Amino acid sequence: MYSALKQAVYQANLALPKANLCLATWGNASQVDRAAGVFAIKPSGVDYNTMKPEDMVVVSLTSGQVVEGSLRPSSDTETHLELYRAFSEIGGVVHTHSRWATIFAQAGRAIPALGTTHADTFYGAVPCVPALTQEQVMQRYETNTGLAIAAACQQTYRDIPAALVQAHGPFTWGSNAQKAVEHAIILEEIAMMAYHSLQLGAQPVDSFLLEKHYQRKHGPNAYYGQR
Amino acid sequence: MYSALKQAVYQANLALPKANLCLATWGNASQVDRAAGVFAIKPSGVDYNTMKPEDMVVVSLTSGQVVEGSLRPSSDTETHLELYRAFSEIGGVVHTHSRWATIFAQAGRAIPALGTTHADTFYGAVPCVPALTQEQVMQRYETNTGLAIAAACQQTYRDIPAALVQAHGPFTWGSNAQKAVEHAIILEEIAMMAYHSLQLGAQPVDSFLLEKHYQRKHGPNAYYGQR
Amino acid sequence: MYSALKQAVYQANLALPKANLCLATWGNASQVDRAAGVFAIKPSGVDYNTMKPEDMVVVSLTSGQVVEGSLRPSSDTETHLELYRAFSEIGGVVHTHSRWATIFAQAGRAIPALGTTHADTFYGAVPCVPALTQEQVMQRYETNTGLAIAAACQQTYRDIPAALVQAHGPFTWGSNAQKAVEHAIILEEIAMMAYHSLQLGAQPVDSFLLEKHYQRKHGPNAYYGQR
Amino acid sequence: MYSALKQAVYQANLALPKANLCLATWGNASQVDRAAGVFAIKPSGVDYNTMKPEDMVVVSLTSGQVVEGSLRPSSDTETHLELYRAFSEIGGVVHTHSRWATIFAQAGRAIPALGTTHADTFYGAVPCVPALTQEQVMQRYETNTGLAIAAACQQTYRDIPAALVQAHGPFTWGSNAQKAVEHAIILEEIAMMAYHSLQLGAQPVDSFLLEKHYQRKHGPNAYYGQR
Repeated sequence: MYSALKQAVYQANLALPKANLCLATWGNASQVDRAAGVFAIKPSGVDYNTMKPEDMVVVSLTSGQVVEGSLRPSSDTETHLELYRAFSEIGGVVHTHSRWATIFAQAGRAIPALGTTHADTFYGAVPCVPALTQEQVMQRYETNTGLAIAAACQQTYRDIPAALVQAHGPFTWGSNAQKAVEHAIILEEIAMMAYHSLQLGAQPVDSFLLEKHYQRKHGPNAYYGQR
Repeated sequence: MYSALKQAVYQANLALPKANLCLATWGNASQVDRAAGVFAIKPSGVDYNTMKPEDMVVVSLTSGQVVEGSLRPSSDTETHLELYRAFSEIGGVVHTHSRWATIFAQAGRAIPALGTTHADTFYGAVPCVPALTQEQVMQRYETNTGLAIAAACQQTYRDIPAALVQAHGPFTWGSNAQKAVEHAIILEEIAMMAYHSLQLGAQPVDSFLLEKHYQRKHGPNAYYGQR
Repeated sequence: MYSALKQAVYQANLALPKANLCLATWGNASQVDRAAGVFAIKPSGVDYNTMKPEDMVVVSLTSGQVVEGSLRPSSDTETHLELYRAFSEIGGVVHTHSRWATIFAQAGRAIPALGTTHADTFYGAVPCVPALTQEQVMQRYETNTGLAIAAACQQTYRDIPAALVQAHGPFTWGSNAQKAVEHAIILEEIAMMAYHSLQLGAQPVDSFLLEKHYQRKHGPNAYYGQR
Repeated sequence: MYSALKQAVYQANLALPKANLCLATWGNASQVDRAAGVFAIKPSGVDYNTMKPEDMVVVSLTSGQVVEGSLRPSSDTETHLELYRAFSEIGGVVHTHSRWATIFAQAGRAIPALGTTHADTFYGAVPCVPALTQEQVMQRYETNTGLAIAAACQQTYRDIPAALVQAHGPFTWGSNAQKAVEHAIILEEIAMMAYHSLQLGAQPVDSFLLEKHYQRKHGPNAYYGQR
C-alpha cells in the first residue's frame, strides 16, 4: 500500500544530498496523503545510497503511530506531524542542516528579504523560531519543535514556506515533498547571498518590490512560466 | 525561420547553469538579429534540461511582440528589448541571479575595479543602478528596469558590458549571446574576489593600470591572444 | 599479516581526499589492533591515487617501531601512537589539514557548540590545544603533539572525538579508522558553519539542548537510527 | 625539436584549470631548458581544451624572441623570462588569477605564515610586490613586472617559491613546470585559509615552528616522504 506516496517521498529524499543540502543522513523529506490520513517519511539514520522506496515509513496523521514499514521513522517525525496538523494546505515537509540556513539558525537570526531572488519564493523574511525552553526540550522535544514552528508561522505559512529553528536548522514545506525540496534548495541559496549582502550593508527590499516579485510568480495575475 | 539565431540562443542559455550561474530556471540569454529586426530569448520558467532549440521565442525589436514560437518568452523580455534598443552596438544580453554579483546588487553597491582581472574585461567599476521607484515597479516593471540600465550605462556600455540592478541582480551584454555569457561568468568571478578584497581593505586600481590591461586586450594595439 | 587491518586503513585514507579534506598527500588515517599490539598507518608522502593496501605500514604500540611494511610511515606516526596510548577506548585516528578546522586552529580558537549539528557528534566545544613550546617542537615534535592532545582531552575524548592543535590543524578519533574519518568530515562541516555563525553573533547552545541532541544519538536511551 | 619540453609545459598548463585555478584562458605555465637556453610557454589566449603540445611556444632566454612555434606566446612571456634570468635555480614558472591569492594581491597584502600548512611549502610570508608605477606600466609592462618580482624575492626565492603582484595576482615557481603548478595549488589553499584565519585574529606562527615544518620537508635532514 501507499506505494506512490512512498515513491514520491523516496525521490524527494534522494534529491536532498544531490542538491548538496545534507551530509551523512542528516535530512529528511515527507509527504502527506490527507485523504488516507497518513504521511510517509524517511527511516531514521538510513543511508541515502542504500535505502529503497519500500523503506519509507508510513505514519498516521491522527495517532502519530507507524502504520506501515519495518524501520523506525526519522527522529524528526513528530515535528513533521505537527506541521501537517497545523498547516492544513501543505503536502510535503523537508528538514535539513543545510549550511547557510543553519548558519542563520545558529545565530538566531531571521533571513531578511534583501532582493528579488528571495521575493520570488518567500513573501517576507524567513523567520527564526526562538530556541525552545528546557521543559520543551526535555519532554516531547520533536513535538514541541513542530508546535513552535506552527505557532510562529500560522499566519504566514502559505506565502513563506520555510522557518529556521534557533540553534538547530531549517524546515521547509510545500504542496508536496518535491516542492518542499525546491524550497529547501532556494532557501539555502538566498541564505548564502543574504549572509554576504548583510556584510556589505544591505537593507530589506521595499515592500512594493517584494509584492511585485512574489505576485508575478504566485499571485492571481502571475505571468512567470508557461501556465 | 531564425533557426541559427534560436540555436545560438539555446546554446547560450545552456551555458548558464553549466557555469553555475543559475539555480532552477533563473537566468536567460538572448541574441539579436538587427537586420531581421528580432531577437530570440529563452521561454519563461522552462527547465534547461528539457528545453529544445525550437522552444526559443522570437520577439520583434519594434513592437516587442512575439513573432515566432509557441511558448511565453522570459518574463524579463522587455528588459532585454530596451537594452537592444538603447545599446545599438550589442548583439546579446544575459540576466542571471549569480551569487556574488547578486550579493553586490542586494547591497546596492557597484563592483569597484580592484585588479587586473577586472580590468581585462571591465573598463571601470561595474555600476549598480539604483532601485526603481514604486511607480516604476508597479507599471511596466521590466521595461523600466531596461530603461534604468540604459540611462545609467549609455556612455559606458561598450567598455563596461555589465550592470547590477539594486535589490535584483546582474545583466551583461556583448557582441552576441555567447559573449554576454562570458561576461556573466567573468562578472561573477570578479565580484567574488572584490567582495573579499574589500574586507582586506583593497582600493581601486590606478587608472593607468586599468587602461593598460583593458587596452592590451581590447584596444587598437591589443596584443593579447592570436588575432 | 594484518591484511584486514591494512585494508581498513587503506580504505579510510582513500576516504579523506574523496571527502575533500586533503590536498596532495596531506592527511592520514590509522587503525589499531589492540589485541595484536599494533596499528597500521598511511606511508609518508605517498599519493592516494597510487598507493595500495599492502603499502600501509604496521607499527608496534609498545616500541613505536615499524613491524611490517617496506615504506616509511607517516611523519605524524608518533602523534597517532601517543593518542592510542592515552585514549584506551579508541580504535582509529585521523589527521588532516581540512580547511575550516585548520582556520580555527590557525587562530588558536576552539570551535564552540553553536547548534544541534555540532551537538549530534561533539558533546561540547572542540578544544584547541595551545601551540607547543620551542623545546616541544625541537625535540620529538610529533610525540609532543600527541602528548599535548592527550593531556588536553583525557577527560573528554569519549564524547568529543576531535581536537585542534594551534597553528597546525585537526585530529579526530573514533572506534575505528572509518569512524575517525566520519568525525573529520563532520568536524569540517561544523567548523565552516561555526565560523560564519560567529560573524552573525551566535552564542553557544544551552547545555540542555547539547545534552538532548548528544544523548538522543549516543546515550543509553538513544533513539536515532535503526539499532 | 624541444618536444619533451613542450610536452611538459602542455601538461602543466592543463593542470591549471583542472585544479580550478583559472577561468577561461587566464593562466600560463612555462618550463626552461637551461642547457638549450630556451623556455617553452603556453600560447596567448588559446583554449586549454583545444590546444595541443605542439602549440607551445619556445622562446630564447637570451634574446626573448620566439625560436619555435607558430602562435604568439603568452602576453606574460616577458615576466617569465625575467624570472628565469633572475632566479638561476628555478626550472618552471606559473601565473594565474586564482581566487584567494588574487584577493590578497588586490588588497596589496602579503600572505602571512599562519600555520604549518603554509610552513610546509613556504618558509615565511608570501610577499606582495607593490604596484608598478605609471612609467613601469606604460613601457615594457610585463618585463617590469618580472623585474619587480625578481628584486623583491632575490634573497628568498629558493624557500618561498611564490609572490603576489599588487592589483594583479600570483606567480609561483619551482624546479620544473609541474612543481610550479603544485606551488600554485598550495598557494591558493593557504591563501583561502589565511584570509579566514585573519578574520578570527590569527597571528603568524612562531619562527621555530616555521623552521621545524619547512625543514622536515625540505632541509638536509628532511624526514617527510619516501626519499
